[in-house]
Amino acid sequence: MTTARRDTYTPETLLSVAVRVFNERGYDGTSMEHLSRAAGISKSSIYHHVTGKEELLRRAVSRALDGLFGILDEEPARVGRAAGRLEHVVRRMVEVLIAELPYVTLLLRVRGNTDTERWALERRREFDHRVAGLMKEAAADGDIRGDVEVRLATRLVFGMVNSIVEWYRPDGRGMGEREVAEAVVRLVFSGLREG
Amino acid sequence: MTTARRDTYTPETLLSVAVRVFNERGYDGTSMEHLSRAAGISKSSIYHHVTGKEELLRRAVSRALDGLFGILDEEPARVGRAAGRLEHVVRRMVEVLIAELPYVTLLLRVRGNTDTERWALERRREFDHRVAGLMKEAAADGDIRGDVEVRLATRLVFGMVNSIVEWYRPDGRGMGEREVAEAVVRLVFSGLREG
Repeated sequence: MTTARRDTYTPETLLSVAVRVFNERGYDGTSMEHLSRAAGISKSSIYHHVTGKEELLRRAVSRALDGLFGILDEEPARVGRAAGRLEHVVRRMVEVLIAELPYVTLLLRVRGNTDTERWALERRREFDHRVAGLMKEAAADGDIRGDVEVRLATRLVFGMVNSIVEWYRPDGRGMGEREVAEAVVRLVFSGLREG
Repeated sequence: MTTARRDTYTPETLLSVAVRVFNERGYDGTSMEHLSRAAGISKSSIYHHVTGKEELLRRAVSRALDGLFGILDEEPARVGRAAGRLEHVVRRMVEVLIAELPYVTLLLRVRGNTDTERWALERRREFDHRVAGLMKEAAADGDIRGDVEVRLATRLVFGMVNSIVEWYRPDGRGMGEREVAEAVVRLVFSGLREG
Protein backbone atom coordinates (compact mmCIF):
# COMPACT_ATOMS: atom_id res chain seq x y z
CA MET A 1 0.00 0.00 0.00
CA THR A 2 2.78 2.42 0.88
CA THR A 3 4.29 1.82 -2.54
CA ALA A 4 0.97 2.44 -4.25
CA ARG A 5 0.44 5.74 -2.43
CA ARG A 6 3.97 6.84 -3.12
CA ASP A 7 3.63 6.04 -6.78
CA THR A 8 0.78 8.52 -7.16
CA TYR A 9 3.32 11.17 -6.13
CA THR A 10 5.34 12.53 -8.99
CA PRO A 11 8.10 15.05 -8.29
CA GLU A 12 5.70 17.64 -9.79
CA THR A 13 2.91 17.00 -7.28
CA LEU A 14 5.37 17.00 -4.39
CA LEU A 15 6.80 20.29 -5.65
CA SER A 16 3.43 22.02 -5.74
CA VAL A 17 2.58 20.82 -2.22
CA ALA A 18 5.99 21.97 -0.96
CA VAL A 19 5.58 25.42 -2.52
CA ARG A 20 2.20 25.85 -0.88
CA VAL A 21 3.61 24.90 2.54
CA PHE A 22 6.72 27.11 2.09
CA ASN A 23 4.45 30.06 1.23
CA GLU A 24 2.19 29.40 4.24
CA ARG A 25 4.83 28.71 6.91
CA GLY A 26 7.90 30.38 5.42
CA TYR A 27 10.81 28.25 4.17
CA ASP A 28 12.67 28.47 7.51
CA GLY A 29 9.55 27.48 9.41
CA THR A 30 8.91 24.38 7.27
CA SER A 31 10.25 20.99 8.39
CA MET A 32 10.27 17.70 6.47
CA GLU A 33 7.59 16.66 8.97
CA HIS A 34 5.33 19.50 7.78
CA LEU A 35 5.93 18.53 4.16
CA SER A 36 5.25 14.88 4.91
CA ARG A 37 1.94 15.73 6.62
CA ALA A 38 0.83 18.13 3.88
CA ALA A 39 1.68 15.64 1.12
CA GLY A 40 0.16 12.72 3.00
CA ILE A 41 3.25 10.58 2.43
CA SER A 42 6.08 9.50 4.71
CA LYS A 43 9.32 11.40 5.01
CA SER A 44 11.19 8.44 3.52
CA SER A 45 8.87 8.60 0.50
CA ILE A 46 9.82 12.26 0.08
CA TYR A 47 13.51 11.30 0.29
CA HIS A 48 12.76 8.84 -2.53
CA HIS A 49 12.22 11.91 -4.75
CA VAL A 50 14.51 14.61 -3.37
CA THR A 51 17.52 15.01 -1.08
CA GLY A 52 15.64 17.36 1.25
CA LYS A 53 13.68 20.59 1.51
CA GLU A 54 16.47 22.69 0.01
CA GLU A 55 16.22 20.73 -3.26
CA LEU A 56 12.47 21.42 -3.31
CA LEU A 57 13.18 25.11 -2.77
CA ARG A 58 15.72 25.11 -5.58
CA ARG A 59 13.33 23.43 -8.00
CA ALA A 60 10.53 25.79 -7.06
CA VAL A 61 12.47 29.03 -7.45
CA SER A 62 14.08 27.67 -10.64
CA ARG A 63 10.63 27.34 -12.14
CA ALA A 64 9.92 31.00 -11.35
CA LEU A 65 13.33 32.16 -12.57
CA ASP A 66 13.10 30.11 -15.78
CA GLY A 67 9.75 31.76 -16.49
CA LEU A 68 11.17 35.24 -15.94
CA PHE A 69 14.46 34.76 -17.82
CA GLY A 70 12.52 33.06 -20.64
CA ILE A 71 10.84 36.42 -21.29
CA LEU A 72 14.17 38.00 -22.20
CA ASP A 73 14.68 35.39 -24.94
CA GLU A 74 11.33 36.08 -26.60
CA GLU A 75 11.64 37.87 -29.94
CA PRO A 76 9.80 41.08 -28.92
CA ALA A 77 12.21 41.39 -25.99
CA ARG A 78 15.21 41.14 -28.35
CA VAL A 79 14.19 43.03 -31.48
CA GLY A 80 13.31 46.70 -31.95
CA ARG A 81 13.66 49.87 -29.94
CA ALA A 82 14.47 49.47 -26.24
CA ALA A 83 11.21 51.14 -25.13
CA GLY A 84 9.14 48.60 -27.07
CA ARG A 85 11.22 45.72 -25.73
CA LEU A 86 10.82 47.08 -22.21
CA GLU A 87 7.05 47.27 -22.65
CA HIS A 88 6.98 43.65 -23.78
CA VAL A 89 9.06 42.58 -20.78
CA VAL A 90 6.84 44.43 -18.26
CA ARG A 91 3.68 42.94 -19.78
CA ARG A 92 5.11 39.41 -19.81
CA MET A 93 6.48 39.76 -16.24
CA VAL A 94 2.90 40.27 -15.03
CA GLU A 95 1.67 37.33 -17.11
CA VAL A 96 4.42 34.99 -15.86
CA LEU A 97 3.92 36.16 -12.27
CA ILE A 98 0.22 35.26 -12.48
CA ALA A 99 0.74 32.01 -14.42
CA GLU A 100 3.37 30.84 -11.90
CA LEU A 101 1.88 32.64 -8.89
CA PRO A 102 2.96 30.33 -6.02
CA TYR A 103 6.46 29.90 -7.49
CA VAL A 104 7.05 33.61 -8.02
CA THR A 105 5.56 34.37 -4.58
CA LEU A 106 8.11 32.01 -3.04
CA LEU A 107 10.93 33.54 -5.08
CA LEU A 108 10.00 37.03 -3.88
CA ARG A 109 10.01 35.91 -0.24
CA VAL A 110 13.45 34.27 -0.35
CA ARG A 111 15.67 35.89 2.28
CA GLY A 112 19.16 34.47 1.82
CA ASN A 113 19.90 32.13 4.74
CA THR A 114 20.99 29.11 2.65
CA ASP A 115 23.13 28.64 -0.47
CA THR A 116 20.00 28.08 -2.54
CA GLU A 117 18.40 31.26 -1.23
CA ARG A 118 21.56 33.27 -1.89
CA TRP A 119 21.71 31.82 -5.41
CA ALA A 120 18.05 32.74 -5.99
CA LEU A 121 18.65 36.30 -4.76
CA GLU A 122 21.65 36.55 -7.07
CA ARG A 123 19.56 35.43 -10.06
CA ARG A 124 16.79 37.88 -9.13
CA ARG A 125 19.32 40.71 -9.01
CA GLU A 126 20.61 39.61 -12.43
CA PHE A 127 17.09 39.75 -13.87
CA ASP A 128 16.46 43.20 -12.32
CA HIS A 129 19.79 44.32 -13.76
CA ARG A 130 18.82 43.17 -17.27
CA VAL A 131 15.53 45.09 -17.06
CA ALA A 132 17.31 48.17 -15.68
CA GLY A 133 19.66 47.90 -18.69
CA LEU A 134 16.70 48.01 -21.07
CA MET A 135 15.33 51.03 -19.23
CA LYS A 136 18.67 52.78 -19.46
CA GLU A 137 18.80 52.13 -23.21
CA ALA A 138 15.23 53.45 -23.66
CA ALA A 139 16.16 56.58 -21.71
CA ALA A 140 19.26 57.06 -23.91
CA ASP A 141 16.99 56.75 -26.98
CA GLY A 142 14.91 59.59 -25.51
CA ASP A 143 11.83 57.32 -25.38
CA ILE A 144 11.40 57.30 -21.62
CA ARG A 145 11.70 60.19 -19.19
CA GLY A 146 15.14 61.22 -18.05
CA ASP A 147 14.05 62.98 -14.85
CA VAL A 148 13.65 59.81 -12.77
CA GLU A 149 16.86 57.93 -12.04
CA VAL A 150 16.86 54.57 -13.86
CA ARG A 151 17.64 52.46 -10.79
CA LEU A 152 14.86 54.13 -8.82
CA ALA A 153 12.39 53.77 -11.70
CA THR A 154 13.30 50.08 -12.04
CA ARG A 155 12.69 49.50 -8.33
CA LEU A 156 9.33 51.27 -8.43
CA VAL A 157 8.16 49.37 -11.51
CA PHE A 158 9.25 46.05 -9.99
CA GLY A 159 7.50 47.13 -6.78
CA MET A 160 4.22 47.61 -8.62
CA VAL A 161 4.53 44.35 -10.58
CA ASN A 162 5.67 42.22 -7.64
CA SER A 163 2.94 43.55 -5.35
CA ILE A 164 0.44 41.61 -7.46
CA VAL A 165 1.37 38.42 -5.55
CA GLU A 166 -0.09 40.05 -2.41
CA TRP A 167 -3.66 40.23 -3.68
CA TYR A 168 -4.13 38.30 -6.94
CA ARG A 169 -6.13 35.09 -6.43
CA PRO A 170 -6.91 32.84 -9.39
CA ASP A 171 -10.53 32.25 -8.35
CA GLY A 172 -12.02 32.34 -11.83
CA ARG A 173 -14.27 35.29 -10.93
CA GLY A 174 -11.66 38.03 -10.94
CA MET A 175 -9.42 39.56 -13.55
CA GLY A 176 -7.41 37.49 -15.97
CA GLU A 177 -3.67 37.84 -16.38
CA ARG A 178 -4.04 39.80 -19.62
CA GLU A 179 -6.31 42.40 -18.05
CA VAL A 180 -3.91 42.94 -15.14
CA ALA A 181 -0.90 43.01 -17.50
CA GLU A 182 -2.59 45.60 -19.72
CA ALA A 183 -3.42 47.80 -16.71
CA VAL A 184 0.18 47.63 -15.48
CA VAL A 185 1.56 48.54 -18.92
CA ARG A 186 -0.81 51.52 -19.16
CA LEU A 187 0.06 52.82 -15.71
CA VAL A 188 3.80 52.20 -16.02
CA PHE A 189 4.18 53.84 -19.42
CA SER A 190 1.43 56.49 -19.49
CA GLY A 191 0.46 57.01 -15.86
CA LEU A 192 -2.92 57.72 -14.32
CA ARG A 193 -3.41 61.19 -15.81
CA GLU A 194 -5.93 61.47 -18.60
CA GLY A 195 -4.75 62.68 -22.02
CA MET B 1 20.75 49.58 39.82
CA THR B 2 17.84 47.80 38.20
CA THR B 3 15.69 50.82 38.89
CA ALA B 4 18.28 53.12 37.36
CA ARG B 5 18.49 51.05 34.17
CA ARG B 6 14.76 50.82 33.90
CA ASP B 7 14.41 54.55 34.30
CA THR B 8 16.48 55.20 31.20
CA TYR B 9 13.74 53.33 29.32
CA THR B 10 10.83 55.48 28.26
CA PRO B 11 7.85 53.87 26.55
CA GLU B 12 9.21 55.50 23.34
CA THR B 13 12.59 53.74 23.49
CA LEU B 14 10.96 50.42 24.31
CA LEU B 15 8.60 50.90 21.38
CA SER B 16 11.39 51.50 18.88
CA VAL B 17 13.29 48.42 20.12
CA ALA B 18 10.12 46.31 19.92
CA VAL B 19 9.39 47.46 16.35
CA ARG B 20 12.91 46.54 15.28
CA VAL B 21 12.59 43.05 16.80
CA PHE B 22 9.08 42.53 15.36
CA ASN B 23 10.38 43.45 11.90
CA GLU B 24 13.37 41.12 12.24
CA ARG B 25 11.66 38.05 13.73
CA GLY B 26 8.04 38.63 12.76
CA TYR B 27 5.44 39.48 15.40
CA ASP B 28 4.45 35.83 15.92
CA GLY B 29 8.08 34.79 16.27
CA THR B 30 8.83 37.41 18.95
CA SER B 31 8.55 36.49 22.64
CA MET B 32 8.77 38.78 25.67
CA GLU B 33 12.11 37.06 26.26
CA HIS B 34 13.37 38.35 22.85
CA LEU B 35 12.14 41.85 23.68
CA SER B 36 13.76 41.73 27.09
CA ARG B 37 17.10 40.68 25.61
CA ALA B 38 16.99 43.27 22.80
CA ALA B 39 16.07 46.07 25.18
CA GLY B 40 18.59 44.96 27.80
CA ILE B 41 15.99 45.14 30.57
CA SER B 42 14.11 42.47 32.47
CA LYS B 43 10.68 41.22 31.44
CA SER B 44 9.21 42.66 34.64
CA SER B 45 10.64 46.06 33.69
CA ILE B 46 8.85 45.77 30.34
CA TYR B 47 5.61 44.92 32.16
CA HIS B 48 6.17 48.10 34.13
CA HIS B 49 5.51 49.97 30.86
CA VAL B 50 3.07 47.80 28.89
CA THR B 51 0.69 44.89 29.41
CA GLY B 52 2.51 42.72 26.88
CA LYS B 53 3.74 42.46 23.31
CA GLU B 54 0.28 43.03 21.83
CA GLU B 55 0.17 46.50 23.40
CA LEU B 56 3.54 47.28 21.82
CA LEU B 57 2.21 46.12 18.46
CA ARG B 58 -0.87 48.29 18.87
CA ARG B 59 1.17 51.35 19.72
CA ALA B 60 3.54 50.74 16.83
CA VAL B 61 0.91 50.26 14.13
CA SER B 62 -1.09 53.18 15.60
CA ARG B 63 1.88 55.42 14.96
CA ALA B 64 1.97 54.33 11.30
CA LEU B 65 -1.80 54.61 10.90
CA ASP B 66 -1.92 58.05 12.58
CA GLY B 67 0.74 59.22 10.11
CA LEU B 68 -1.22 57.93 7.13
CA PHE B 69 -4.68 59.10 8.24
CA GLY B 70 -3.16 62.46 9.19
CA ILE B 71 -2.45 63.02 5.47
CA LEU B 72 -6.16 62.96 4.69
CA ASP B 73 -6.74 65.86 7.11
CA GLU B 74 -4.11 68.11 5.49
CA GLU B 75 -5.58 71.01 3.58
CA PRO B 76 -4.29 70.01 0.10
CA ALA B 77 -5.94 66.62 0.63
CA ARG B 78 -9.29 68.26 1.41
CA VAL B 79 -9.49 71.26 -0.93
CA GLY B 80 -9.55 71.43 -4.72
CA ARG B 81 -10.08 68.98 -7.56
CA ALA B 82 -9.88 65.29 -6.66
CA ALA B 83 -6.87 64.68 -8.98
CA GLY B 84 -4.84 67.35 -7.18
CA ARG B 85 -5.86 66.00 -3.78
CA LEU B 86 -4.92 62.49 -4.91
CA GLU B 87 -1.51 63.71 -6.03
CA HIS B 88 -0.93 65.29 -2.62
CA VAL B 89 -1.97 62.07 -0.86
CA VAL B 90 0.34 59.88 -2.97
CA ARG B 91 3.29 62.22 -2.41
CA ARG B 92 2.69 62.40 1.33
CA MET B 93 2.18 58.62 1.61
CA VAL B 94 5.74 58.16 0.35
CA GLU B 95 7.05 60.83 2.74
CA VAL B 96 5.25 59.33 5.76
CA LEU B 97 6.33 55.81 4.80
CA ILE B 98 9.98 56.93 4.76
CA ALA B 99 9.72 59.12 7.88
CA GLU B 100 8.07 56.28 9.84
CA LEU B 101 9.82 53.45 7.97
CA PRO B 102 9.99 50.74 10.70
CA TYR B 103 6.43 51.48 11.85
CA VAL B 104 4.92 51.37 8.35
CA THR B 105 7.01 48.26 7.54
CA LEU B 106 5.47 46.52 10.55
CA LEU B 107 1.98 47.70 9.59
CA LEU B 108 2.39 46.28 6.08
CA ARG B 109 3.48 42.90 7.48
CA VAL B 110 0.57 42.48 9.88
CA ARG B 111 -1.27 39.26 9.06
CA GLY B 112 -4.38 39.14 11.23
CA ASN B 113 -3.86 36.46 13.90
CA THR B 114 -4.75 38.64 16.92
CA ASP B 115 -7.41 41.27 17.65
CA THR B 116 -4.82 44.02 17.26
CA GLU B 117 -3.67 42.67 13.91
CA ARG B 118 -7.25 42.38 12.66
CA TRP B 119 -7.93 45.94 13.82
CA ALA B 120 -4.80 47.16 11.99
CA LEU B 121 -5.84 45.38 8.79
CA GLU B 122 -9.30 46.92 9.08
CA ARG B 123 -7.80 50.42 9.44
CA ARG B 124 -5.48 49.80 6.47
CA ARG B 125 -8.45 48.75 4.37
CA GLU B 126 -10.26 51.93 5.46
CA PHE B 127 -7.30 54.05 4.35
CA ASP B 128 -7.09 52.23 1.00
CA HIS B 129 -10.81 52.76 0.60
CA ARG B 130 -10.48 56.51 1.21
CA VAL B 131 -7.73 56.76 -1.44
CA ALA B 132 -9.76 54.64 -3.89
CA GLY B 133 -12.65 57.08 -3.30
CA LEU B 134 -10.43 60.00 -4.31
CA MET B 135 -9.33 58.12 -7.42
CA LYS B 136 -12.94 57.39 -8.33
CA GLU B 137 -13.81 61.06 -7.97
CA ALA B 138 -10.84 62.09 -10.12
CA ALA B 139 -11.93 59.58 -12.79
CA ALA B 140 -15.49 60.98 -12.67
CA ASP B 141 -14.02 64.48 -13.18
CA GLY B 142 -12.28 63.13 -16.28
CA ASP B 143 -8.86 63.98 -14.83
CA ILE B 144 -7.53 60.43 -14.62
CA ARG B 145 -7.86 57.64 -17.13
CA GLY B 146 -11.08 55.67 -17.22
CA ASP B 147 -9.65 52.56 -18.92
CA VAL B 148 -8.09 51.03 -15.81
CA GLU B 149 -10.55 49.90 -13.16
CA VAL B 150 -10.27 52.12 -10.03
CA ARG B 151 -9.81 49.26 -7.56
CA LEU B 152 -7.07 47.72 -9.69
CA ALA B 153 -5.34 51.09 -10.16
CA THR B 154 -5.49 51.72 -6.39
CA ARG B 155 -3.91 48.33 -5.70
CA LEU B 156 -1.13 48.92 -8.21
CA VAL B 157 -0.34 52.41 -6.91
CA PHE B 158 -0.30 51.14 -3.31
CA GLY B 159 1.89 48.26 -4.52
CA MET B 160 4.46 50.70 -5.92
CA VAL B 161 4.40 52.96 -2.84
CA ASN B 162 4.48 50.16 -0.26
CA SER B 163 7.33 48.34 -2.04
CA ILE B 164 9.61 51.18 -0.93
CA VAL B 165 9.88 49.55 2.53
CA GLU B 166 11.66 46.60 0.85
CA TRP B 167 14.70 48.59 -0.25
CA TYR B 168 14.75 52.09 1.23
CA ARG B 169 17.45 52.46 3.88
CA PRO B 170 17.98 55.79 5.64
CA ASP B 171 21.76 55.64 5.42
CA GLY B 172 22.32 59.32 4.71
CA ARG B 173 24.04 58.54 1.39
CA GLY B 174 20.96 57.62 -0.62
CA MET B 175 17.92 59.48 -1.80
CA GLY B 176 15.87 61.64 0.50
CA GLU B 177 12.15 61.19 1.03
CA ARG B 178 11.32 64.15 -1.21
CA GLU B 179 13.28 62.76 -4.15
CA VAL B 180 11.59 59.37 -3.88
CA ALA B 181 8.16 60.98 -3.40
CA GLU B 182 8.68 63.18 -6.49
CA ALA B 183 9.71 60.14 -8.59
CA VAL B 184 6.63 58.19 -7.46
CA VAL B 185 4.31 61.10 -8.27
CA ARG B 186 5.86 61.47 -11.74
CA LEU B 187 5.57 57.75 -12.52
CA VAL B 188 2.09 57.31 -11.06
CA PHE B 189 0.57 60.31 -12.82
CA SER B 190 2.57 60.62 -16.04
CA GLY B 191 4.25 57.24 -16.50
CA LEU B 192 7.66 56.38 -17.88
CA ARG B 193 7.03 57.48 -21.44
CA GLU B 194 8.72 60.69 -22.55
CA GLY B 195 6.55 63.59 -23.71
